[in-house]
Amino acid sequence: MGPHPAVAAIRLAVRRVLHDILTEHTSTPHTADHTADPHERPPSPLVLVACSGGADSMALASAVAFEAPKLGIRAGGITVDHGLQPGSDLRAEEVVLRLRELGLDPVESTTVRVGRDGGPEAAARDARYAALDAAAVRHQAAAVLLGHTRDDQAETVLLGLARGSGIRSLSGMAAVSGAGGRYRRPFLQLDRQTARKACMVQSLPVWDDPHNADPAYTRSRLRHEGLPALEKALGKGVVEALARTAQLSRDDADALDTWASQAEASVRDAAGGLECAKLYALPPAVRRRILRRAAIEAGAPAGSLFARHIEEVDRLITGWRGQGAINLPGKVVAQRQGGRLVIRQG
Amino acid sequence: MGPHPAVAAIRLAVRRVLHDILTEHTSTPHTADHTADPHERPPSPLVLVACSGGADSMALASAVAFEAPKLGIRAGGITVDHGLQPGSDLRAEEVVLRLRELGLDPVESTTVRVGRDGGPEAAARDARYAALDAAAVRHQAAAVLLGHTRDDQAETVLLGLARGSGIRSLSGMAAVSGAGGRYRRPFLQLDRQTARKACMVQSLPVWDDPHNADPAYTRSRLRHEGLPALEKALGKGVVEALARTAQLSRDDADALDTWASQAEASVRDAAGGLECAKLYALPPAVRRRILRRAAIEAGAPAGSLFARHIEEVDRLITGWRGQGAINLPGKVVAQRQGGRLVIRQG
Repeated sequence: MGPHPAVAAIRLAVRRVLHDILTEHTSTPHTADHTADPHERPPSPLVLVACSGGADSMALASAVAFEAPKLGIRAGGITVDHGLQPGSDLRAEEVVLRLRELGLDPVESTTVRVGRDGGPEAAARDARYAALDAAAVRHQAAAVLLGHTRDDQAETVLLGLARGSGIRSLSGMAAVSGAGGRYRRPFLQLDRQTARKACMVQSLPVWDDPHNADPAYTRSRLRHEGLPALEKALGKGVVEALARTAQLSRDDADALDTWASQAEASVRDAAGGLECAKLYALPPAVRRRILRRAAIEAGAPAGSLFARHIEEVDRLITGWRGQGAINLPGKVVAQRQGGRLVIRQG
Repeated sequence: MGPHPAVAAIRLAVRRVLHDILTEHTSTPHTADHTADPHERPPSPLVLVACSGGADSMALASAVAFEAPKLGIRAGGITVDHGLQPGSDLRAEEVVLRLRELGLDPVESTTVRVGRDGGPEAAARDARYAALDAAAVRHQAAAVLLGHTRDDQAETVLLGLARGSGIRSLSGMAAVSGAGGRYRRPFLQLDRQTARKACMVQSLPVWDDPHNADPAYTRSRLRHEGLPALEKALGKGVVEALARTAQLSRDDADALDTWASQAEASVRDAAGGLECAKLYALPPAVRRRILRRAAIEAGAPAGSLFARHIEEVDRLITGWRGQGAINLPGKVVAQRQGGRLVIRQG
């Protein structure tokens, strides 16, 4: 008798990703080091599971513990103590014990100090990824696996939608991201319910982070009120549709970035100025991406540069009637000088 | 003392669109007819307001009645009786009277028979636009003005999101659409509340279509439950963000369609077959658009062709392992023959 369907599903998702990691690992240059003994096998790669103790990442840890050894991959775990709740240190120690019980090794807990930049959720995320990056380097890990599910992805798409800043912000989380493709998200096409079920049938205790139910957090409100109401109005397929939108938007945004990057070279004159007539001839979507890139290159912080800024700069090209310089965030100024658009820090 | 801000807002929105129509009208070829008397002025263009009697389209009718004469434009009105509710004929006659009271001329009511294709909302919409098209032709109207607001646009984006079929379905309604740009939506950046307020301060009676509050309709559930819950979770800017997403998605989708259409020519061999190696080299977003176009060209109905179909065809290019022919809707078959992809009705 095989494993419960939920357990089979999480293991299959993990197996695929571990297989990818193994393929990449054995084809990386260091294994082709001719000075090494040709009979010496490349060191077995290490993957680290990032685990909060919640159902998604506990399910991930259990599946990795089961699958990795079969592929000759070493599996470790790491839990991040954000220090935001009393007793979070004890909580982290408990997660460490559970991961060890699953057979992961090495396992560690790392404490971070959460700043305030960009709000509580963004600050916690920044601190967490910095700690995971550091742990990956310290352990020379081939990858860090994250337990984000299709439901998390749907929430991320809606959060991006609320920014109204275009399809890149609709593209959610990537299955592979970070420096050198360090982060992998095996559960991105798996629903949260499956992860929870897999923990239950494996008798894995899980921890429900009170933050996840705290209506002070946007994501929590979305999860418990916004998304259910949307499902009630639009039908049960909404989460899947949002996740598919993420993938399609990501591919589209990538293609348009490629186009913009190629087109940019063709609209620059010898002195590096942007030629208005050539910009005018481009599709608006490509032109605005070039303008956005130029503004960021000139020093405008990407996070403060909104669609309305770029639209205003665009009107120097498409609606020229002698308007003055446009002030952009980061003290960047865009102005038309004859047939050229000049964007620089003023 | 000027008009109430809401009335000023609807008039400004209408003035802009009427100005566009006038500019296009005076530059169309028929006014450059050299056999005509050069002193004869071109006939004054006619615009038709499509009016349900609801707040949005009554506000539109009032603003058009006010602005059109000042620009030398004739303004008429049309109301569509869908025959879906008892007394809808009397209702339509009442709207005709109100439009005449506003000074619109000609004004007419037209009765349609709503089919069943695509569900009740799509069928009603198809019947309505067919009737508006016919009326525009009959009256030689330069344009048909529609009262869709930013709130309608936000709902349309969410409905598109629920389909999960990519950024084209996120692009909502266009400000200009239909044959020759017949349909214009002056209120697409105006909120529903402003239209309602403009009716109130002008003492215009408005009719609340019971369908708009009937939870049997997806759009109604979205309007009264889904969107308010989303606003509660994500903040009041959601409607604006969705409307902006529509515009950005439309521009992006247009640019990618242009790219796909140009790239398609370069991947076809002399016999019209699609060369797999050349398809492979394209960005996925461009390649999938080419595959979709080819499937539709071969006879697959666009509405039944989903992202998963195209993904499966795409795997003939990106994940070739000798798989067999792929069946698509409309009895279209996609198969790989050597280095060629052949898509045809089988």
